[in-house]
Order: sequence, then C-alpha cells, then structure tokens
Amino acid sequence: MHSEGNLSAVKKLDFEEIQSLLKDELATVERSLKEHAGSSVAVIPIISGYLSNGGGKRLRPILVLITARLCGYNEGGGDITHSTVVEYIHAATLLHDDVVDEADIRRGIPSANAKWGNEYSVLVGDFLFAKSFSLMADHSPPGVVQAISEATKFLAEGEILELVHSADIDLTEKEYLNLIFRKTGALIKACCQVGGLLGGIRGEVTGRQMAALETYGENIGIAFQIIDDLLDFTADEKTLGKPVGQDLIEGHVTLPVIHAFANADEKEKIFIAETVKSRELSARRIGSIIELIGKYDSISYCKKMAENHIDKAVGELDCFPPNEYLDALKGLADYIINREM
Amino acid sequence: MHSEGNLSAVKKLDFEEIQSLLKDELATVERSLKEHAGSSVAVIPIISGYLSNGGGKRLRPILVLITARLCGYNEGGGDITHSTVVEYIHAATLLHDDVVDEADIRRGIPSANAKWGNEYSVLVGDFLFAKSFSLMADHSPPGVVQAISEATKFLAEGEILELVHSADIDLTEKEYLNLIFRKTGALIKACCQVGGLLGGIRGEVTGRQMAALETYGENIGIAFQIIDDLLDFTADEKTLGKPVGQDLIEGHVTLPVIHAFANADEKEKIFIAETVKSRELSARRIGSIIELIGKYDSISYCKKMAENHIDKAVGELDCFPPNEYLDALKGLADYIINREM
Repeated sequence: MHSEGNLSAVKKLDFEEIQSLLKDELATVERSLKEHAGSSVAVIPIISGYLSNGGGKRLRPILVLITARLCGYNEGGGDITHSTVVEYIHAATLLHDDVVDEADIRRGIPSANAKWGNEYSVLVGDFLFAKSFSLMADHSPPGVVQAISEATKFLAEGEILELVHSADIDLTEKEYLNLIFRKTGALIKACCQVGGLLGGIRGEVTGRQMAALETYGENIGIAFQIIDDLLDFTADEKTLGKPVGQDLIEGHVTLPVIHAFANADEKEKIFIAETVKSRELSARRIGSIIELIGKYDSISYCKKMAENHIDKAVGELDCFPPNEYLDALKGLADYIINREM
Repeated sequence: MHSEGNLSAVKKLDFEEIQSLLKDELATVERSLKEHAGSSVAVIPIISGYLSNGGGKRLRPILVLITARLCGYNEGGGDITHSTVVEYIHAATLLHDDVVDEADIRRGIPSANAKWGNEYSVLVGDFLFAKSFSLMADHSPPGVVQAISEATKFLAEGEILELVHSADIDLTEKEYLNLIFRKTGALIKACCQVGGLLGGIRGEVTGRQMAALETYGENIGIAFQIIDDLLDFTADEKTLGKPVGQDLIEGHVTLPVIHAFANADEKEKIFIAETVKSRELSARRIGSIIELIGKYDSISYCKKMAENHIDKAVGELDCFPPNEYLDALKGLADYIINREM
C-alpha cells in the first residue's frame, strides 16, 4: 500500500499527456466557448472568438476538468459548463487588463483593444462576465457561484492593487504575493474548488480533500504568476509573444525586480527606482536591469520561491486515491514550474 | 368593489411620497451600499462612494423595494440586498459607460474616469459587478441570479449596440427601441422580477402578477430612456448635469433625431447626417438640430411614444390588490414621464 502510494507520487503526466487524457472534454469545451459567446450583436462572438482562438493554454478549464474527475464527477456536463465559465472570466479579465495596461500585443498578435479599441474590449469583457454568471445561474450546484464570484472580486482587487502599486519600487515581497494571489491565484483556486463541488454532487468529497484542492489551486496559481513574471525577463520575445521587459515598461514591479532591488547597492537602487518610474524605457536600460537581476541571482530566488509553492500545492494531494487524474494534477504542477512560455 | 378599484387607479403617489413611504428602507440601502463596497484595497470604496454620493435617484432600489412589498415580502433583508445588487450593477455600468463615451461630466460633477482615469473606472466597475454576484450567491432565491445576469448581459449588448450604431443616421426606430430595451429596460425589468421572486418566498405570486411586473418594468424602462434622450435636447445644462446635446456630441443617435431625420427634406437630411458624423460640434450646429427637432414636432412624438409605454406598463397592474405600493408603482410611472431631470 505504502509503495503504491510512492509509485503514484512519482508518476506524473506531462502537459501533452494531460491534454491527451482530456482530449474529448477539451474539444467539447472549445465548442462550448464558441456556442455561448453567441449573441444577436454580431461583433461579440467575433471579438471573443479572436481572443479565444489566439492561443491560450486552457489551464483553467483543464483544472476544472481534472479536479471534477478526480472527485468522481464524470457526467452531467457541469464540468464543461464551468470550464466555459472560468475561461470566459479569464478572457474578460484579459480584455480589461489590456485596456488598463494599454497593451498592443497579446499572445504574439495585436491585442483586442489595439484592433477594435478600448470601448469594445471593456464591453465585450462585461458581456463575458455576465454570460458566465448567467451560465452559472442555470447550472451551478451550491457554493459554486460563491467561489467564482469571490474569485472575480479578488481578480478586480488584484488588478486595482497592481495599478495602485504601479511604478512603486517600495512594493514589498509580501504585498507582491498578496497581489498575485488576487490577480492569478484566486481564480485558479476557484477552478479546483469547482471541481470538488461538482464531485460533491455525486458522492462524498471529504473536508480534507476540499482543503487539499484549495491549497493546490492557490499555490500553483501563485507559482504560475511568479514564473510568468520571471519569464518576462528571461524568455525571448518570440516565445513570449510580447516584448521582453514588458512588465517593467507597463510599470509592474515584480519579484525579480523586488529581489534585485533589495540586494542592490545604493547606486544601483537609484538606477532601478528611476527605471521603474520611467515610462519610456530604452532596450539598453532594460538590458541593465536584466544584468542586475543576473548579478543578484534573482531568477534563482524566484524559481526557488515558485518551487516552494509547488511543493506546498502537491504536498496534501495524497488524501486522494491514486489514479491518472491525480497524476495529471501533479504533472500540471511540474509543467507550471518548468514552462518556458 | 369596482369603484374601489377605480379609486385606486386614480390614486398615485408622487416621487417624494414614494421616497417617504420607503424612507427607512432607503436609508438602510444607503448604509448597505457603503458597507458592501468595503475592500482591503482602499481606493475601491472611495471611487464607488464618489459615484454613489454624487446623486442618482435610486430608481432601481426603489423598484425592488416597492415590488417586493407589493408581493408581500416585508422581512428577511432580501429586498435590501438586492437593492444593493441592482444599484451596484447600475453604478458599474455608469463607470464603464463613461469610459466608452470618454465623458468628463456625470451628474454635474467630474466623472470618475476624468478624476481617476479609465483604468480605475474599468476595474472598480468590475469589482462592483463581482460584488453583486457574490452578494447574490449568498442570498438569492431561485431565479434571481438568472434574472439579474440576463439583464447584465442585455446591458452589455445594449452598450455594444450603441457603439456599433455610433453616428449611424440609418438607425431605425425599431433598432433604437431594441437598443434602449437592452441598455435601460432590461435591468429595470429585472428589478421588478426580483421583487416578485422575493414575494414568492413568503406566499403566492401568480403567473399573471409576475407577467404584469415584467411588462411594467420593461415598459417604464423604455419610457425612462426615451425621456432621457428627449431631455438631452430640451433641458438646460444645469438641470441636466451635463451639456445639452451631449448624446449628439458622443455620436448617439436617439429618437428625437431619428424622427426629425425621417421627416426632414433632402437638404436637412444631409445636414443632420453630417452633424451626426462630426465629432466636433459647435453650439450653433446643435442649435440647428434642436430647431429641426422643433420644426418636425419630434419632442411631442417622443413624449407620445413614452406615454404609450407608460400606459402599457400600468395597464396590467390591476391584478394586484389595491394598496399604497400599487399606488407607488403607478406614481412612479407618472414621475418617469413627467420628470425634468
């Protein structure tokens, strides 16, 4: 028994194996995303489809699907509906986020606001939010609307905090972690809660299992954002689908910069603070910041912190019986820490 | 019995009497609006409070309160919670609307986007949307989340339609009515549905009564927007809290213009079409449009159409027993048609 547990702890699916495990469900999610964005107002499916077809890993639907299956939910369509809901909420956030950041590029192609203007991005985002809650009103078991709406509130708070702390070199690591929990961790956590709640319709999901799902979701969410913030400095533009140092250009102070700043000497501190405040950044200046991040080994520091969150995420999962969905959750945690885009 | 019905049909409360009838409840709603906008992110209650304290007739909360009481709901707090919900959704829409219209003035004071920037308006709006659904997740009886989320979807569609038809002189009267139903009628209708659904918790609300509430809400909503669009040309800036002809400046083609255009001669048609397309409008040009609206008696036409909707709204209300809440609904319909701001 013990050795089987260990074996299962070692077995992990990679991202392609996870996609393959959920092949049929993910195809149904794609159809659902298209179907529910329908509107008598023709431009709505065009804009939401533009974003939807522009790539995206479908991480949130994948989490809903895996956790629902892990908890014994395998028919009834609630997993598909709620996969659609969380992806719409994510898409709405991206639309609004790009307006806030005045972004021109998203996933390597012109952002929706660059293509159609801020107005459409704001309003199609609103439509997707409303559609999400409308879908939930029809289909959600108790607790789901609560989990998702709380996450959506956190999301808005996270985005606002990011704005409040724009170009704020005094942002502490603790404030940063609070911010990225709200901005990214909360919705990812909610995806896992939804899976557990769906499972609870069919059979018993223990309190310990629900707590493990929440711990998992929250921590892979935080790790995901730390890695995202690190890739902004280490990946190349082509892989990233946006310019290197984009966060810096947009005034977002992220963990690599916080760490380098904390370790920098007085002269370097002044340079970093000035750079963060400046809205027109030369490639050379960004290069100098990347050098400082290298000098103080800030990337390793970030990676280590992300790994700690991943360890915490998977640490309590053994309250679930070993099966391929558990392997998928563990594999997903690995994917998040090792991804290069 | 018949004469009592007639008497009741004649008795109507004016707006101040309605406010006085609901004095305690409206005070509780104000406290609730303040309380639930609380957040660890300090700027959120500041911005939402700025909008909230800047006037506003609280029409939507009033409708929830009256219809809930009319349907026998008078304890449990659901009326207060849902008054808060609909006012937050309305406020979120105003925040996003001002971003879309690039408005500088709202209710006679600088708009939130003019004061804090588009970013905050977008994100605090999102927070209020999320908070609304979070409140409903905790407190709503069956059907309420559905009604409100459908209305929110219509709202987004209405705003998008307005954008699609920006400066579009070919907008038909039918398209205009469809647009204002979505933009304004749908949420006002939902307020009345919510009152009915709350009533249904305590006792019986018949199908006919629910239908009457929906007809009432939808039609006073449409009438409200027609009057709004008419006041844009007939009221003075001080009463209006924004410049005369503001809709025209923002490219919104409304019923007075549609009617004048339909009746205008060829030369006037060209002048109106040019004016609608132009983004820089002189006071003189706006004056000429107002003259044409006067020449073709377009204001009377609009008023008549609004009156027809008001008649339709109150026409089916007699399925409710006569009481002061019924008088309030009838009085509110009168207020909407006769208001000057």
